[in-house]
Parts: sequence; structure tokens; C-alpha cells
Amino acid sequence: MIQRFVFGNPIDTEAVVKTIAPSEGAPEGWEIDEAGRQIKRNLNASDIVYGLGETVRGLNKRGWQYISNNTDEPHHTEDRRSLYASQNFLLILGDSTHGIFVDTPGRVTFDIGYTKPDDLVITLDDFDVNLYVVEAGDPAEAVREFRQLIGKSYIPPRWAFGFGQSRWSYMNEAEVRDVVKSYREAGMPIDSVYLDIDYMDSYKDFTVSEERFPDLAGFTKEMRGEGVHLVPIIDAGVKMENGYDVCDEGKAKGYFCKDENGEDFVGAVWPGKVHFPDFLKPEVREWFGSLYGRLLDLGIDGFWNDMNEPALFYSQKRLKEVLGSLQGLDADTMDIDSFFAMAERVGSLFNNKEDYKSFYHTYHGQKIRHDKVHNLYGFNMTRAAGEAFARMAPDKRILLFSRASYIGMHRYGGVWTGDNSSWWSHLLLSMQQQPALNMCGFLFAGSDIGGFNCDVTEDLLIRWLEADLFTPLYRNHSAKGTRRQEAYQFGSQETFRNILNLRYALIPYIYHAFMKAQQEDGMYISPLSFGFPHDARARQVEDQFLIGEALMIAPVYTQNATGRYVYLPERMKLLRMRAVDDYDEEVLEPGDTYVPAALNEVLIFLRQGKSLPLSEPAESTSALDWNASRVIRFDD
Amino acid sequence: MIQRFVFGNPIDTEAVVKTIAPSEGAPEGWEIDEAGRQIKRNLNASDIVYGLGETVRGLNKRGWQYISNNTDEPHHTEDRRSLYASQNFLLILGDSTHGIFVDTPGRVTFDIGYTKPDDLVITLDDFDVNLYVVEAGDPAEAVREFRQLIGKSYIPPRWAFGFGQSRWSYMNEAEVRDVVKSYREAGMPIDSVYLDIDYMDSYKDFTVSEERFPDLAGFTKEMRGEGVHLVPIIDAGVKMENGYDVCDEGKAKGYFCKDENGEDFVGAVWPGKVHFPDFLKPEVREWFGSLYGRLLDLGIDGFWNDMNEPALFYSQKRLKEVLGSLQGLDADTMDIDSFFAMAERVGSLFNNKEDYKSFYHTYHGQKIRHDKVHNLYGFNMTRAAGEAFARMAPDKRILLFSRASYIGMHRYGGVWTGDNSSWWSHLLLSMQQQPALNMCGFLFAGSDIGGFNCDVTEDLLIRWLEADLFTPLYRNHSAKGTRRQEAYQFGSQETFRNILNLRYALIPYIYHAFMKAQQEDGMYISPLSFGFPHDARARQVEDQFLIGEALMIAPVYTQNATGRYVYLPERMKLLRMRAVDDYDEEVLEPGDTYVPAALNEVLIFLRQGKSLPLSEPAESTSALDWNASRVIRFDD
Repeated sequence: MIQRFVFGNPIDTEAVVKTIAPSEGAPEGWEIDEAGRQIKRNLNASDIVYGLGETVRGLNKRGWQYISNNTDEPHHTEDRRSLYASQNFLLILGDSTHGIFVDTPGRVTFDIGYTKPDDLVITLDDFDVNLYVVEAGDPAEAVREFRQLIGKSYIPPRWAFGFGQSRWSYMNEAEVRDVVKSYREAGMPIDSVYLDIDYMDSYKDFTVSEERFPDLAGFTKEMRGEGVHLVPIIDAGVKMENGYDVCDEGKAKGYFCKDENGEDFVGAVWPGKVHFPDFLKPEVREWFGSLYGRLLDLGIDGFWNDMNEPALFYSQKRLKEVLGSLQGLDADTMDIDSFFAMAERVGSLFNNKEDYKSFYHTYHGQKIRHDKVHNLYGFNMTRAAGEAFARMAPDKRILLFSRASYIGMHRYGGVWTGDNSSWWSHLLLSMQQQPALNMCGFLFAGSDIGGFNCDVTEDLLIRWLEADLFTPLYRNHSAKGTRRQEAYQFGSQETFRNILNLRYALIPYIYHAFMKAQQEDGMYISPLSFGFPHDARARQVEDQFLIGEALMIAPVYTQNATGRYVYLPERMKLLRMRAVDDYDEEVLEPGDTYVPAALNEVLIFLRQGKSLPLSEPAESTSALDWNASRVIRFDD
Repeated sequence: MIQRFVFGNPIDTEAVVKTIAPSEGAPEGWEIDEAGRQIKRNLNASDIVYGLGETVRGLNKRGWQYISNNTDEPHHTEDRRSLYASQNFLLILGDSTHGIFVDTPGRVTFDIGYTKPDDLVITLDDFDVNLYVVEAGDPAEAVREFRQLIGKSYIPPRWAFGFGQSRWSYMNEAEVRDVVKSYREAGMPIDSVYLDIDYMDSYKDFTVSEERFPDLAGFTKEMRGEGVHLVPIIDAGVKMENGYDVCDEGKAKGYFCKDENGEDFVGAVWPGKVHFPDFLKPEVREWFGSLYGRLLDLGIDGFWNDMNEPALFYSQKRLKEVLGSLQGLDADTMDIDSFFAMAERVGSLFNNKEDYKSFYHTYHGQKIRHDKVHNLYGFNMTRAAGEAFARMAPDKRILLFSRASYIGMHRYGGVWTGDNSSWWSHLLLSMQQQPALNMCGFLFAGSDIGGFNCDVTEDLLIRWLEADLFTPLYRNHSAKGTRRQEAYQFGSQETFRNILNLRYALIPYIYHAFMKAQQEDGMYISPLSFGFPHDARARQVEDQFLIGEALMIAPVYTQNATGRYVYLPERMKLLRMRAVDDYDEEVLEPGDTYVPAALNEVLIFLRQGKSLPLSEPAESTSALDWNASRVIRFDD
């Protein structure tokens, strides 16, 4: 059962698709403190709190404070309160199951046993909110009810379940060709290559560098002949440049966010100075969305939307102030406090949250300061694209995922979890974020495999590809200046080949389970508690996951480990897989087991009465025979 | 057996205390590439590589690249190559045991299966090195031989095994009194309170703020009456200030490091502009060491040496250049590349390694550029103090530990592991660094319990105090601006009281085991492989540790966990301890076990035929009855 409670004058976020008449009073079990702008609940010692989508730390969010305030945050360390997304749904698993969706576009603080271990305190900057409260018999039911409220999740094209290779940046046709050729020669399947910001002309959205990609239509066709889709990035900020038609048209039609004087707000990101489209206006979404058509016309059928928190390297106004403050500084007379203040002023130019108070949107006909609707920005950029694809290519699925998001965006695209690092701790984090994203409607999701920032190692990349074997978005991506991270760069070619081929053999299972979750508003990747809600030990497990209805996985996520402990809530068949046609089968009894897993071995557990179909691997999904060439069964 | 091999003209680091005649040729099993400045070895798949003291990642160092280059590095994330210390000893555990000590004071890169999984490649910036190679039957023997080479480890006073509370900073007498009173009122024992930089007058070494601590001698005595020792910090840089006698004398006598023109080099740290004492000169060590006497005379008997990599917020020369480059910058004409360059120039002022090439020491009578002997700086600062204590207080043990170090410094003081963070991953790291430090001679060591940077949570602090229950240095420390971290700040008073009392009950065991390791050149905290070198599973365990001869510990280091898996190489008695007088005893058979451990429970395993003496807890070590009031036995 879902109830809606309304406090103050909430801004309609358009996150939900069902109209629920508001209930009177306060939701049962929750304390509302309007003066303190707080929503509170006491937690029992054994309650588990899931949710919040893409955040740091484990599945159970207890013991930290999270802040919904979309942030271009490249350091995903345990202490961070905010990452790129705001997914304000919590699921409390106790004797019964309670869900709460705090539907408000501004800043929200979730203190989940941080200040006091047994207190859940949600604080809003503005107490104008639609509160949706879910009561259910078990977590799966709670998720289903919530997902029915927020609408069906986005479905990508089938090829998006294939392996993708990305890099900031493959600089030109030759580099992309070389990547594809290297994968093909290594016998490793691949379905997509991502184009990061350097494919554009001077980082201008919807342009293509003539020097680097002189014939993108022809090159896209050539790559498609190899079974490979090119997936360009689109950034939120539009370069300020006279004669750049997107900028000119946006200015002329008043499509950009305004500063306090009604002038187009000036920030800076990759292209230098930019204006930010006011995606909250339907006509801006229609205009910006249509621009994706320029790339569709070249044969492109996939996009990733980036920098849409929006990231802000600096605002022109603040840069003027800071540069002014640097004039006349003298090393001989500078004391240490002035030195720190100077360094701090320069550092604080980047993504300064105060700058979000210096520009404005028009939303539902009202002028509104950006920070009040901040968390809706990336959602509406992606909605612009999604709505346009529905107009321009109604019979085709287009790949679309975003860095920033808010619940509601899940209807238009997926997400990737942003600029993680080549750390073992981020391998585990990448898994733990998935169920939380599923709860919030984001089924098509994934992290940068191998890690974006920092230098990868061969063993980390192998374990990460193994751990994410079932993750819908299966993409290797890394940053400029880091060690090259393509699978063919390393010595253990056979291991990489076997893992990637295994992914392809599993795609029919993955796709089927994904579509079932999409259609039935269920989980694709879930904590064990969803399958075994009354098993107290299963509820505690933070590093094993259920994939669809047939499988449990237990990734190895520590360096130099040659095995791991696994908890089995019931009898299962262990598949220790080295390759599609090379695996051990062993039936394991319920309880705790130490399971050896060498670097080239993946641990998959098949549930009783279920079967796992495996296809014959292919070099890309276009060549994949979706009929099973082999079925592994675990009969009752 | 230890052999010495000499290449080039090595600088004598004074790390070793035994003279070994050089062997001819190259050490067996190692390839020497003088032209490439490399020392190489092929690793077998199952070889484990221990060592390197205080570094990131796990016990087994395989799969990363480490660089010995002492660095003021506040981000101890997995990608960091260098932290504060250089402890160039590796122990390779294969079918036999091989050790190598790369004794050179400059930069050394240890590629331990980073570039290629099976290659160990050690690269020196300058190939002038004393190479000590150890061959032994087992890891304990290898450590013993190496430790005999480098000399006996430092012994702190007994009270240093008590609990210490630190903060950057307790600002005055009243704040320190309040900390002690709060611990006493909460019934939690404490032996020391640390004074961070604000106790000084304007951060000038060997001064005391008259405003904050008007009578430090009287206050030290008052605190001693409470059973509490005050432990002030000493920084490496000496404030430039006319009339400050330490600065004046250092300048007059030529005791500071010089720039390329022979002028005293100017850097900046907390006091603003400073000179750096040339600790590599014996007369400077004697002078600087004697200055500690000013505080000894006030009754102080413990010190921590900080900022001695040396940290360098900026060099005066670089600051001039950078400030110059900022003049005339105009926001209207600045492009994005100029913006990044500007921000990068300002950011690169901090701890810029190039600055280490702009000042000079006199070492063994020779002028030498700092970067060539960089890793010896903190060692010799601490040696200055240790040598002075031996002169000034020959009959007394003085507490002394340092942030920067090199092997050899272990004879003069201990170490703490610097500015870690309030992260669960750093709780585990704090444990994993201990055995590596022990191998290198550093027995008296510890991490900032609860974490220095970022905000702690109650559960993290509890688990960290439990995990570090046997760590010789047992100190809670946290940074300015973070959540208050004293144990009495949180709700679970009884749990904190029980853990701290349990520490005190264990001090006789801890001290005895520590002293045995010191006297016999053994390990105090060791990996399981030291006790069970032929148990293949035990060799893989990265999160259980042997403490002395009687105990194994298995800390819980993940948030919200209510138990953990434990591998028992042999029959042991589990002690699940909630308090000195409240624990479960259970004999567990060898193998894998899941062991419940609630937040208030510590898992200690008693080995067969051994016993664990427990004393009656006391409010400080001065009141501790070292006779056991209780003995837990596990008879054969």
C-alpha cells in the first residue's frame, strides 16, 4: 500500500506517474517536525535500511549521512555525502517492510544512524514535499509498489548488453579502428566503442571534429559492419561562440538559464565558457532533444549524457572575483593564513555549490533559483533526449544513460556511476550500488569496469570483469593519463577472452531476467534478503547478489585472494566457471563455505529447480545465436 | 644468512649496525641490471611478498607499485605509491624465504607484479646501493636475521601502552582538563593527552603559548597527579623570526639547509616561513636534540615528531614565481586551458617534489642535494631527539615517535602512520600495516584510531578500538573540523568503557610480548604465515593476526557486520569478549568458521597450551597491578 502526504507547497518533480490523493495527518511510524523540517523514525537494532541508489558504502545504509545534492564528485571515498545522483527512496527491512520516497527537487539530508545509531532523520532545506510511504509484506512487494508509482524503467537496445570499450578519449578514427581490431584479433567480443569529449569540434555539443572524424556517417557504417556501435558523449553546457548555431539559437530563443539580471548565465566546463540550457522548460527539451537527431542521422544510436549535475568548473562571476583577489599578492609579505586563503579561493572555483544560487530556471511558468530544483537538471536533460527519440525514432531503441539523475529519469535512460577509481574497494562498491539503483527504477546501470581514475592492475581488471559479469551496462572506461585499460593490453589473454565470451554466452539469461524485472517492476540484481527475507544471516550478507530468479553470485573482490567465503541460504549448485565450456559443478549444502576461486574463475550459484542457458559466444551481439547451446540444470 | 652486495658508491645511511664484508658478483636468484638501474626477480605464482612497512594495500604487496619517497600524503587511498616513510625491506615467502634490503637514501620504485604479475622489479634513481640479501628457512628466521643487522628496536615507557587521546588541537589547559575529567567520569582509563601544534607560541618549536598554557610545568604536574602524561608535538621546520632564539642560533651557527646560493633555504609550513635544520650533521642533531630538554625540564616525557618528510606547503622561490604568474590574469580573456594551468600552478605549491632539488645538506662532510638523501630526514630528526634523551635522561624511557622514517630510525623511536581517514577501509589498513612495520624494526607503532581526517561514526570507533586492542601505540586522534571523536562523546558508554578497560587488563600480556619481540628480534604482530608457514590457506589470510605466542585475533572491519569468517589453522579456544569479566569461551576445531561478534564483542583466539593473563583494569597504567587477577587457559 502506498500513501501520499503533502507538506508545504511541493514543486512537482514529475517523478511519479500515478496520482494518489493525499492522506491527512502524518504517516504511521514516522514523526513529522515541520518547524525543524524533519521526518524521523526510530530504527530497531536489527532493521536494515536499503536504498538511495548511487551512493558510497554498503547495501545497508545505516551508519552514515547522505545528502541528495547532485555533485560532480570524482572522489568516491567513504566520507562523501553526495555523488552525482539524487534517488530519495529508502526501504526499511524490519519485522515488516517500510518504504519512503521523499519527492522534492532540493537538497535533502538522510541521517541514517549517523548522529545516533537508532535514529533515522531526514532533513529538507525547504519543507515542501510530496512524501510517499509504502507498507508491504516483503521487500520485493515494496519495490514493486514503488516502481508502479514511478513508472516503467527504460529499456536499451539488445546490443547495449554487449561489452563496451571506452577511454577519455579515443582521439580519432584510427584509434577507434585499432581498438576494434585489437579486440577482434584477441578473439574477445565487443559491441560498442565510446567517444568521449574529443570527438567534438572544440567540445561543442552536436558537432564532430572534421579533423578527427572527417566522415562520421561513413565511419559509423564501417564500424557497424564490424558489429560495433559508436556511442558519443553529450555534455550539458553549450559553448559560447558566435556562429555556433546551437549557441546562437539558444540565445535568440531565450533557452538558457539566466543570472539574477536576466542575462544568460555564464559558467565554464570543457569548452570554456558555456550557457546551460533550461531543460526544465518543455520547449527547451524539445529543441535540445531534436539536436540529437543530427547524430542519429549519421547512424549513431547510442549516447551518454555527462556533466549534467551540472558540473561547473567555475562561474564567470566568481572567477572575476577570485582573479581580482590575486592581484598584487606579494610572496615576501604574505603570511601563512593569507597563503591558505589564496589557495582555498582558487580551489573553491571548482563546482562551488554557492554558484547554484546565482542562476535561474523557468519551471511550470515560475522563475525559480537553480538550487531549489538542482537535482532535476540531469533528469530533464536525459528526458529531453528520451522524449526526442520517441518522436524521431519511435520504432527503434536508442542507448541512453546519464551521469546525474533523479527518480523519474529511469523512464528515459539508464545511469553509469561516474568517475570511480581503479581501487579494489570500488569493485565491491560497483556491485553494492546496483540493487539500490534497481529499487529506484534504474535497471540499466553499471560502473566503469576497471575504474576510471588511477592506474588499473591486470588482476583488478580481471576480477572486475568477473564481478560485473551480469551487470546490464558492461563497459570498461578509463581516464586520460591513466594506464591503458583495454583487456588486450595485458598478458592473461586467455582469461580475458574466456570472461568476455562467457558474458556473451550469458546475454540471453541477462536479457530475459532484465526484461522480466522491467515488465514486472521487480529487481534484476538484489540483496539476498529479497530472496530469503526471513533468513537472518542472509539479510546480513553484503557481498553476494541474486541475479534474476535462477542465480546467486559471489564475486571475489580482494587483491591476491584465491577464494572467498560464501553463505548459502539453501542448497545450491556451485558453478566454478573458467570458460563457457570449462567449469566445475558441485552441489553445496546450506550454510557457510570457503570456496576456492583462482584469478580465472567465476563463482556462480544455480538455485534448485532452475537452469542456466548458455549460448555459443559470438564476436558481437549481432552475431549471437540466442538459442542456448548448453543448459546447466539443478533439478529438484 | 645475510650477504651484502655493493653497487656504485652508496651513501652510508647508518641504517645498519653490523659491518658485513661485501660479496662479489650478484645475489643468487636476483638479476642486477646496472645500466637500467634495476634489481629483478621472477616470482612464482604462489609467492607472497611482505614488507615495505607503512604503505597502502594488504599484507601481500603483490599487484602494485610502491615508491620510497617520503611524502606528506593525507590521502591513503589504494592508488598512492608513497606515504610518509621509506622502509625498503621485502620478504618473499615461497618454497624458501628470501629477504632484501635496498639501503639507499634516494627514491626507489618497487614494482611488485604491477607491470607484469610475475616480475618483481626494483628501480633506483641512482644505482649506488648497499644491497642486503637474506636467505632463511622460514619468515621468522629471516626477520630475526635482518633485525640483527639493523639493531634493536626502540622501547617506550610502560605508560605509552596505555590509552592516549589526541586532537588537532586541545587549545588550552581547560580543554585538556575537560578531556581527562570526561574520561575519568565515564570510567574509561587514559594515560596520555597529546598536544598538537597549537600549544606552541606561533608554532615555534620548543616554545609554549603563555596564553594557552601559562604554566606548563605546573599543568604537567597536575596532570601527572591524574595519571596522565602530556605529549607535545615537535615539527621539523623552525620559524623564521628575529629574536626567536632557536632561529637566531641556527642561522648564526649555519645549522640550516642551504639553497643553491648558500643562503638558508626558505620554505613554509604551519608557522609560515621556516628554515629546515640539517639533521644529517651530528652537531645539528646534538643542538636540536638538546632543545627537547626545555620541555623535559617542564616535566614532559613524551614527544611526537611531525612534518619531517619534510612537509613543505610551499618554497618561497616557487611562491614568488606562481604569484607572479597570476598577475594581470583577466577572466574575460582567459581560456579554459589557461584556467586549468592557473589552478594547477597554485595547487602544485603544496609539497612539490621539485622543491626537494632546491636545497642542500652537508652529510659526512659533503654537500649533497636534498632529494639524494630525502628519505633520511625524518630518521635523523628523531635520532637527534633519541640521542639527546640518552644523554639528558639516561635512566628514563622517553616516549618518542615520528611520522617520517627510514629503517634505522626504529632504534630511536616508533612511528604512527600519519593522517589516515575515518574510513572502514583504513581500520583494516591500520592492522595490515603493523606486521610490515614489525619486519622493518618498528615495533612501537599505531594508527590514528577512529581516523584522523573525515567524520567518524560510533560503530567505526568501537570496531577500531577493538581491532587495535593489541596495537602498542593505542591513540585516538582526529583533525580540526571533524566530528569530535573522544570515546565519551558517544551513546554506547558501557561498550567504550569495557573495551578500554579490557585494553588495560591486557597490557601485561602486550608488554611482555612486545619486550620478547624486542629482545629476540622477533615479530610482535605477525601474519598467520609466521606461525604456520606450511599451511597454504594460512598464508593467504590477510585479516587475522598473531599477537605474541599465545594469541590470534580476527577483527571485524566492515560496517553493520555482526560477525565474520575466521580460518583456524589449528584447534584454538575462542574468547568472545564483551568485558574483562564477561566473555564466552568455546573450543573451535581447525578450519573455517563463521563467528558471530556483536558490536560490543571482540574475538580473541587462544592457542593450545597457552594462557592469557588478565589484570584488574585501572584508570591509568600507574595504578595498574601487573599481576594477573585472572588467567584464561587452553590446556593441551
